[in-house]
Amino acid sequence: MSGRLLTEDGVWFDGAARLVACDRHVDDRGVLLPMELGQLPFVPRRLFTIAEVPAGAVRGGHAHRCGQQLLVCLQGQVQALLRRGSGSGCATLLPDGPGLLVGPGVWCQQTYQLPGSVLLVLASEPYDPGSYLETWDWR
Amino acid sequence: MSGRLLTEDGVWFDGAARLVACDRHVDDRGVLLPMELGQLPFVPRRLFTIAEVPAGAVRGGHAHRCGQQLLVCLQGQVQALLRRGSGSGCATLLPDGPGLLVGPGVWCQQTYQLPGSVLLVLASEPYDPGSYLETWDWR
Repeated sequence: MSGRLLTEDGVWFDGAARLVACDRHVDDRGVLLPMELGQLPFVPRRLFTIAEVPAGAVRGGHAHRCGQQLLVCLQGQVQALLRRGSGSGCATLLPDGPGLLVGPGVWCQQTYQLPGSVLLVLASEPYDPGSYLETWDWR
Repeated sequence: MSGRLLTEDGVWFDGAARLVACDRHVDDRGVLLPMELGQLPFVPRRLFTIAEVPAGAVRGGHAHRCGQQLLVCLQGQVQALLRRGSGSGCATLLPDGPGLLVGPGVWCQQTYQLPGSVLLVLASEPYDPGSYLETWDWR
């Protein structure tokens, strides 16, 4: 997969966020994205998907105290804004890659830039409302 | 979630295929579908997604020798045709539900009925090309 890297190496905050490659199988019937769950950078215990989003809608806008999340755009175009402390970064996620791995303490906000955009998020932790951090000053 | 049941109870082949409810959180920013992976009817070891599909495209068209799969339409509309032995069934999968649980020996083919349709499939087994059965006579 050809990753679109918006920084020189697709790594931010000493590796706390980074772009990762995902296999895709493309033919004239669409795009198949396979994931063997035992081969991810973490053991997923939860997933969520975001779909049916109006173009331009903004979602997320928080960090988590612990755990990792892998964000993969399945369709359309999703821009991820990343912040930690005084640093920031930006990645454009597209159906032909890359995915974005976000670690604890990295604030992330997603803008759904095209109609029909769909995002898949795999998470290492079960849902816990106490894990959310709305500001990006936490390190 | 209000499941759309196209049979009286959404169960086919003595329970080898059935509709299942999935939580969805809907607001004006779209539809969030959460899944705690430890709470599914099986332990998922693999997932795949299908997106960027031309409307009317047909995919699948096989059974698996073993394992279970959960099909969830994230966006658009996907019609699933089910066959086992001399029996058949049909389910329309939509973003507001339901999901479709397919067990071993149930042949399943999906038609992507609307532009922008996206399907998520969770599987209990790792990828194994030897597990595919193209006909529906196997029981």
